Formats: sequence, structure tokens, C-alpha cells
Amino acid sequence: MAPTPTPNQHDASVAASPASGRHRVAIVGGGFGGLETVYRLGDADVDITVIDRRNHHLFQPLLYQVATASLATSEIAWPIRYLLRGRRNARTLFATMTGIDTAARRVLLDDDDTVPYDTLVIATGARHAYFGHDEWESVAPGLKTLEDATTIRRHILVAFERAERETDPGQQAALLTFVVIGAGPTGVELAGTIAELARDTLAPDFRNIDTQTARVLLIEAGPRVLAGFSEDLSAYAQRSLEKLGVEVALGQPVTECSRDGVVYGGKRVATRTVIWAAGVRASPAAEWLDAPADRAGRLMVEPDLSVPGHPKIFAIGDTVTIAGPDGKPVPGIAPAAKQQGAYVADLIRRRLQGRPAPPPFRYRHAGSLAQIGKRLAVIEFGRFKLRGALAWWLWGIAHIYFLIGMRNRLSVALNWLWIHTRDQRSARLITQGSSKVTSR
Amino acid sequence: MAPTPTPNQHDASVAASPASGRHRVAIVGGGFGGLETVYRLGDADVDITVIDRRNHHLFQPLLYQVATASLATSEIAWPIRYLLRGRRNARTLFATMTGIDTAARRVLLDDDDTVPYDTLVIATGARHAYFGHDEWESVAPGLKTLEDATTIRRHILVAFERAERETDPGQQAALLTFVVIGAGPTGVELAGTIAELARDTLAPDFRNIDTQTARVLLIEAGPRVLAGFSEDLSAYAQRSLEKLGVEVALGQPVTECSRDGVVYGGKRVATRTVIWAAGVRASPAAEWLDAPADRAGRLMVEPDLSVPGHPKIFAIGDTVTIAGPDGKPVPGIAPAAKQQGAYVADLIRRRLQGRPAPPPFRYRHAGSLAQIGKRLAVIEFGRFKLRGALAWWLWGIAHIYFLIGMRNRLSVALNWLWIHTRDQRSARLITQGSSKVTSR
Repeated sequence: MAPTPTPNQHDASVAASPASGRHRVAIVGGGFGGLETVYRLGDADVDITVIDRRNHHLFQPLLYQVATASLATSEIAWPIRYLLRGRRNARTLFATMTGIDTAARRVLLDDDDTVPYDTLVIATGARHAYFGHDEWESVAPGLKTLEDATTIRRHILVAFERAERETDPGQQAALLTFVVIGAGPTGVELAGTIAELARDTLAPDFRNIDTQTARVLLIEAGPRVLAGFSEDLSAYAQRSLEKLGVEVALGQPVTECSRDGVVYGGKRVATRTVIWAAGVRASPAAEWLDAPADRAGRLMVEPDLSVPGHPKIFAIGDTVTIAGPDGKPVPGIAPAAKQQGAYVADLIRRRLQGRPAPPPFRYRHAGSLAQIGKRLAVIEFGRFKLRGALAWWLWGIAHIYFLIGMRNRLSVALNWLWIHTRDQRSARLITQGSSKVTSR
Repeated sequence: MAPTPTPNQHDASVAASPASGRHRVAIVGGGFGGLETVYRLGDADVDITVIDRRNHHLFQPLLYQVATASLATSEIAWPIRYLLRGRRNARTLFATMTGIDTAARRVLLDDDDTVPYDTLVIATGARHAYFGHDEWESVAPGLKTLEDATTIRRHILVAFERAERETDPGQQAALLTFVVIGAGPTGVELAGTIAELARDTLAPDFRNIDTQTARVLLIEAGPRVLAGFSEDLSAYAQRSLEKLGVEVALGQPVTECSRDGVVYGGKRVATRTVIWAAGVRASPAAEWLDAPADRAGRLMVEPDLSVPGHPKIFAIGDTVTIAGPDGKPVPGIAPAAKQQGAYVADLIRRRLQGRPAPPPFRYRHAGSLAQIGKRLAVIEFGRFKLRGALAWWLWGIAHIYFLIGMRNRLSVALNWLWIHTRDQRSARLITQGSSKVTSR
């Protein structure tokens, strides 16, 4: 998999970094895992290069709130180079990785640039996946990036606008039907918030339609919502969603997905808005390295998170699969990526200091949280379970705590206060197009 | 100019509005003029339809702050139907106007919809204009919409990112050269803020480039900056810009504008980022009505703001031209549009009540304000002039005051506090594309 460098490749980092002779750590991906690696390397005597094709780190746990017009993009995203401004041993490259030359130990970038490394950390995440139905992507956008979120926001808001102008009752009903596929935390949070948007936020603003009649349908192939939680919390989440007006369809995989609607469990529903929250596929890290992967493309790593056959290449976060202490795969959530980043940073420091390698990576599950609408949540920390309004407060405090920067914390808290007290959502903007843009 | 309706046109408002027999007022455009007309019509016994191809009203005076990463889009924009939610005599249509059938008194929309009217108010604004050089638009984006602002933001931020990766000194210098064409308030505000972005906000974040060496060039064909202000304030503004590091080139029209650079006053400057703030062209209102217009396409209206030959059609705001009390044209600013909207609303109410028509519209110039960087401003209210830090405070208070909604006021104030105390700008996001997107 190591492409031969072409003659016109020039080495960006020769000009870029001082000829320090220091150990060079390249980190691809500025998500939770990649940044944690930089942070935990601290002031180690290394030259760190963080490469990301986006200029921003994204607080993905709240991305659904951008998609549902509750938060602004800048409230949950920060320029990576701003987050690393104080780290004098780190530099940030806004670049797209195209491959890895493992023989020459160089990351290949677009524009024929390369970044040499002594240690490489791959933290390139995952995209949503359509299980062999890639043609569904244009119909059912998923939620991974800021653009995904503003696209979904536009779909939802345009559907209400078009329903307001529609005179055919069948078309109007299809426009007012919102389908979320996949009932993990993201699907549950999207469905609950869309239901509230229709019931509370938008209701006073429309004249021809009653937005409260909007149908929100949450479709799940498995037997329950929030399968990662215990069964009683799943049942509670389902009841709470239904109270918000969400229809929950369980054990009914989607078999068709088109511009006219969705077929699930043999039933057809006409809709103009489908959101995909059903599955992810890892970044092509396994392909770049010709390394073994699971069905979702996740790289299978060694117990020390190195790539088999490449002891100086590590992979962390959503792009890998590794078993947790319970034998089940470590979940694709921010705390897991951060633990892996911390582990790899520790391992690199030990190697540089000639100390023994750490024991194999061991995942510690801190807990699971999911919001259900704007006033309820479910929380599970080992045997500690909590649900309802108090759980929502803990959910809110935890998320505000993990946001970066005091300004964002104040700003998000202010937005949530407005949503709670006035049902107003500040980011109800249809951008990237005028009314001629359809909801697809 | 009245197109014959085609047979498949259906009348959206027949289904939409009650067969009330009330006087129907159609307002095209939800900017400052259009909304003021609705507000001033108050609870008058009319059926108001507001048509806009965007779903949001935009606070254009602060749009340059979105373009320079200082504010989020949702801080200066609100859904029009949210602003009109309490007005039971008004409904909002998210639709694009395609023409006017003056014979049948109907506004023609996309999708072959029509909206009948008894009185029509055209408040469709203006776009930037390139004075016969439409090919410059792709090179030098202007600033009128939220998308324009995020496009310019992306250009500016991507230029710094590419400069960081660039090894050729000439290319790097071109990437670090920012040209603003037109030194009215928008041009002055953009140039000053870009200079501060380079000098203060970005400087600690880059490793290979010194962002403080960035060149910001403000090019003006006329003899001074802020030509709408008195000469001493213009001179002060120019000195202040120069202190911020902006190069001001006066009396030098731009004669060429390409992907490689700009030619002005016979000089060529290599740049990758050009922003157009030099002129506007009115919406095609004059063409829709086959009415007389000035060179910038602005409809020439009667002293009561009606369109010549159409006493029931009014046009207000940036899409019209009318002389002010000093004989000069009324400026294209928000207070002028609002005064015209208020005038038309009063005229409609009088007509409905059988009262005499009001005296001809008379513009009262409230004052001119412009920000120069983050701590200075110039203000001119008739003979009252103010400049410097105190003027900036008045500028800030006035703009916060005119923002809609307490949440936005708090949120914008919070952002400005952060910019002032920490030089942090919250919205430094490159969206709509990864690093493979070039700055063009």
C-alpha cells in the first residue's frame, strides 16, 4: 500500500519544522482522540504535526442540536490550530491525507505534500454507512459534520415551509412526515427534538398548517431503542418519546428509501425528510495500511493500539475496533477515543524515555447518557441509573462542562435557557439557497 | 410586462387566506423596509402576505462581522415568520417572486403560484454590482447574504491556511494579501477587521507564517474613504485604518480583477482574496414593472413612493431612488428603508379609512456610523460628530439596541466582550468543504 513518491513531491515539513532532530509524531485527525494525544504528550520533546482536512474540532455529542436549529455551528466547533496555539511542540496542517508511505514513513497529502513521521497516530474517525445501499445517501443524509448538520436543518425547515405552501393534502402530509432511521442516542435525540420543534417552537409561526400534526417516525431494525442502555431505561426512553409524539417502530428494518418515501417492515410511508442515524463505516485507515478490518471497516489493532505489523503506527477512536473488558467492542464514543489517545501518548513518552511499555489498553466505561427532548434524559453509570428531569440536569451540566471555552459554555447555556423558557430556537436558518432549493 | 397566467397556475392564496373580503397587502421582501411596513400596519383590518425567497430577516449592518469570523450567522438573522408570529393579520410565504401581473393584480411566484393583491409593496433590495464586469463576481465576492458572508469567511481563513502550507515565497505573499474594493462603511469595516484578525486573533496560532505580515489593501476609486461622512471624519478614519496596518489607495479605480490579482491605478497586486464592497445594483423591480430606473437599476418612484402609473404599487428601500431634502438621493441604509416602510403603511391606513393622503415622503437622516477595527468608530449626526473610543461605545450600544431579541443582544455582547478582552473570534470555521476546497 506504499505508493512510490512521485518526483514532484516536495516535503512540506522540511521547510516547516526546525531541523531539530526531535522525534516526529504525526497525528491524522483533530477529533477527540487526536487532540487528547496532543494534550497528553504535553511538553514532551517531540515535534507534533496534527493533520485534518477540516479546520475545526467538532463537539459531536451536540451536533444533533445544530441539525435541529437549537445551536449555532460556532458554539460546538473550534479551529484546531486555536486549540493548539499554546502547544509550542505542535503545529497544525489543514490538509487531506491521501495515503501512507510506510516504507519511507511519510503521510501523503493532497497537493503532493508529505509529512515524515517517526510515530504515526491515525485518528480519522468514521462516516455514516448505508449497509450496501449507498444510493440512499442522497435521500437520507447522515450526521457527522457541520455541513451534514446544516443540510439536515435545511431539509427539516424547508419541509415545513413547503407544507405551508402546498395545497394537495397528500403532498402536505408527506412534507409533514419526518423519518429518523436508527434509534441509538443520535436517532433518539434527533426524533425527540424534531417532535418538540414541531409541537412547541414552530406551532405559533405557521398559518396554513398545524405543525403539531407533523408525524415523527423513529425506525429501528433492532428490538429496542438505545440498545446500549439497560432494558428498563430503553423502555422508559421509548415511553418518553411516545409522549412527545414520536412513533417508534422496532424490529423493522428499512428495505427501501427513495425520494417518495421509505419502506420498513413491509409498510410504506410517504415522506420528504429522512435522516440516517443507523450505522457508521470507519475511515479507510485499514485500506491505507493493508491491515485487517471488521465488517464496518474498523481496523483491528493490537492490545497496545498499534497496527499489526507496524509497531510505530497507532490507530485510535472510531476508526478501530478493539474488545473492552466485557469482551464487547469498545463503543464509538468520545470518552473511548480520549482514553485511547491518552494511552498512546503515554506509550510514546515511555518509549522515548526508554521505560517499559504500559500494560495493554483497557477501556473503562464511564457511562452512557442520552437526551430525550428538552427536559428528560437517561443516564447509566455502571449500576447507577437515572432517568427523567434530574437526569436531564446532569446531562446538561456534563455537556456544558465538556464544551471548550467559557464563551461557548455561556453561549450554549444561554441558548438552552431560551429553548426551555420560550421554546425559541435561535438557529432556524435556511442557508445555502433560496426558496427555489427543494428539500432534497 | 404583465405575463399572461398559464392555465396550470393555481392561486395559492385562495386556499391560504380566509375569504375575508379584507384589503390584501402583498409585501415582497422581509428586510428592514418590508418588515417595518408590516409592523406599522399594526392590527389594521388587512390581509398581509410577506413573500421572501429567504426564510430569514438579516441584520445587514453587522454582516461584515460574520464574514470576518466575529459573529455566528444565527446572531444576526431571524426567521421572518417568527418575527411575524404575533401578527394575526400577516402570513409569510417562503417563495421566489418571478414577476408581477399588474393587470390581474397578482404577484407571480416560482412553482406557478400567484398571490393576489389590492396593494403591493416592493421591498426587494439590491445586490452588489460590478459595473459591467460581471466576470469579476466569481473572483471578488460581495457581501449581501449570509451565504456571501460565510463564503468570504472561507476565502479569508483558507488563504491563511494555504499560506501556512505554501513554500514558495511569492505564492505565500499573494495568499497573505487581502484586497477590499470600495471604501464605504462596509469596505472600511471589512478592511479594519481583517487587519485585526491577522494582527491579533490569528498571530499566535500559526507556525510557518507570521500573520502580522499580512497585507490588507483598501482600494477606492473616489478621493476619500467614507465619502458619506464629512471630510475630517474621513481623514480620521483613514489614519485609523493605516494605524491598524491597512493600506489605503484612493482615486485609483480597479481596472482588472482575476484569479491572479488586481490592477488598480496602473499597479498590479498579486492576491488570492478580493472582496467587493464597491457598488450595488437594485433588484429587477423596474424591469418587473417596466418602470423608469436610474443607472444602478433603482426604480424612480413618485413623491408618495408609488410606482409611476401604478398608484397601488409602492416600492421602498434599496430598490428605489428618491431625492432627500438636500436634493441628494436618500442613502441605501436601514433607517431610510424603515422610514419608507412606515410612510407606506401610514398611507395605506389612510386610504382604507378614507382620510386624505399624507404629504410627500420626506427623509430624515438620523446619522451615519462606521466601525474602524474593534475599538474605534466615527459617528455623524447632523452637526454632531464623534470619533474614537467613545464613538465606538455608542456604535456598539446602538447596534445591540437594534438587534432583535434579548438572546441575540446577550449573545452578540458576549462575543464582542471576548473579541475585546481575548482577541478571540468564535466563528473561525471553514465550512462547505474540506481542505481540498481552494480559496476560490
